[in-house]
Amino acid sequence: MKIYDVENFPNPLRVRIALAEKNATSNVEFIAVDLMNGEHRTDAFLAKNPLGAVPVLELDDGTFISECSAIIEYIDTEFAGDSLTGTTAKERAIISMMQKRAESTVLDAVATYFHHATDGLGPVLETYQNKEWGNIQGEKARQGLVYFNDVLGNSQFVAGDVFSVADITLFAGLVFAGFAQIAIPSELTHLVAWQENVAKRPSVAG
Amino acid sequence: MKIYDVENFPNPLRVRIALAEKNATSNVEFIAVDLMNGEHRTDAFLAKNPLGAVPVLELDDGTFISECSAIIEYIDTEFAGDSLTGTTAKERAIISMMQKRAESTVLDAVATYFHHATDGLGPVLETYQNKEWGNIQGEKARQGLVYFNDVLGNSQFVAGDVFSVADITLFAGLVFAGFAQIAIPSELTHLVAWQENVAKRPSVAG
Repeated sequence: MKIYDVENFPNPLRVRIALAEKNATSNVEFIAVDLMNGEHRTDAFLAKNPLGAVPVLELDDGTFISECSAIIEYIDTEFAGDSLTGTTAKERAIISMMQKRAESTVLDAVATYFHHATDGLGPVLETYQNKEWGNIQGEKARQGLVYFNDVLGNSQFVAGDVFSVADITLFAGLVFAGFAQIAIPSELTHLVAWQENVAKRPSVAG
Repeated sequence: MKIYDVENFPNPLRVRIALAEKNATSNVEFIAVDLMNGEHRTDAFLAKNPLGAVPVLELDDGTFISECSAIIEYIDTEFAGDSLTGTTAKERAIISMMQKRAESTVLDAVATYFHHATDGLGPVLETYQNKEWGNIQGEKARQGLVYFNDVLGNSQFVAGDVFSVADITLFAGLVFAGFAQIAIPSELTHLVAWQENVAKRPSVAG
């Protein structure tokens, strides 16, 4: 299989951590997308993902899968090792819910802040910005950090006592927050300790 | 199990269609949330879902599950009948991807248009509006309709030849579009035919 992505970008990072957790990175050929020069908006790339976003997984039969949650569920099913998406219906529902919350209240909110309230990827790529909306989303992200600090005061990981895709999504959200210069308040001690703990995992630390 | 929701609202509709597809509606006790009077912003409701959104599923052990995609996956696993989320890893990935696309490019875009560029739920509940952003999202939704018309020109359902949760999400998006007075252009003949077809399903027509 192939993955079209940009190394170190937040959403590609999610898939790369998932692959490393499953010891499956060597099964994938990575193909760099020249996003800074707009390759993701070319017809050739839009044929792979009409939404123009990275990463995209290409299966050996030529099927293209985009959306990180879909890609990671595919990886989790295809490769052996501890499940990242849960086993029982209840576990899976809780992980799916927490993963979605990490997307909507942190990762996606940070992304909107970055692309709308800062210079983002620069004037050529940021063709429309709504600074007021970006700042509202930045505030939403800060509230999201407080919410997850509370969650992590009650459990070792985001969706309970087992590392899951919900942790991957939140971790990528914090990486993006750092890049967008949204500081993680030091008083969010549970969140900070969890972030340090996840950063030490072989899938992240390398 | 119990579901806290508002009948006829778009996200609750998704879960109710899924339950009906699985012939499982009678297994659920529905509890009406008085959203128009702000019940979803009370401490009692936020203890069920800190994001303050309906629907919320309560399992018999008291666990609360929110986020439609998580609730529907739980329902799909717990009850017999044709799968709404796919069986093989590839089927599941395609359905998950298309479901997410239906959320981001239609349902969520329509919701943002409704809450920001129209009167929405009225001045008491719409405490912050960003009309320009709402209109941008309305345009995104119109483009999403064009995209799904193309998809439905190539396959019977949104994620292939089998009805799935991706169809449920898009259908709820079109219901919301109608409510928000975003017209579905009659030249989108594949989309219109699909909508008429889905509307006739016993899970929708009742």
